[in-house]
Amino acid sequence: MQNSVITKYGLHGKLTAQSGKGDELAEILLQAADLLKSAKGCHLYVISKDQQTAENVWVYEVWDSKEDHDNSLQVAGVRELIGKAMPILAGQPEKGMEFTVLGGTGLN
Amino acid sequence: MQNSVITKYGLHGKLTAQSGKGDELAEILLQAADLLKSAKGCHLYVISKDQQTAENVWVYEVWDSKEDHDNSLQVAGVRELIGKAMPILAGQPEKGMEFTVLGGTGLN
Repeated sequence: MQNSVITKYGLHGKLTAQSGKGDELAEILLQAADLLKSAKGCHLYVISKDQQTAENVWVYEVWDSKEDHDNSLQVAGVRELIGKAMPILAGQPEKGMEFTVLGGTGLN
Repeated sequence: MQNSVITKYGLHGKLTAQSGKGDELAEILLQAADLLKSAKGCHLYVISKDQQTAENVWVYEVWDSKEDHDNSLQVAGVRELIGKAMPILAGQPEKGMEFTVLGGTGLN
């Protein structure tokens, strides 16, 4: 691989809702994804549920840089959505797993 | 969440290359991603490396259905690339983690 490849910042994290609140949490995160459509450097913000535990909601993010990711907290409305999500979480969010994204199909 | 939401099939898997072969494996997978651009039902096929181990290459895939994913082995050239990748893997690929993808930003 050439050194000239421009990589991106990836993050895959899990949020766990309180019992029975998985769909509500997913809905809040889908609203956050919508707000991030115009965020600087945001390529992907994909919301999933896993197939074992209805309370687990996963977010797969790709950004131009970690800095762009960190700045996303400043996007209008995002803090309000975090404020809606926090009370229905089962404990603190875990730190997600970070990746160096090389490229692929479907990545804008 | 309404029951009418159309979900997609997600898969996140790790391939581990033999020592020193991580970049070569990533390059093969990027070629596979390119072949899958026109595959039926393929939304995402994103190649990453993790930040701890240079031999680990991660693939995050989103398809309309598991069936579409399974059929991707039939795409012209994919088997040849698998044939190139297998000899440089350190052991058998692990089964990835499957997701029910609800939506998000950057997903075509």
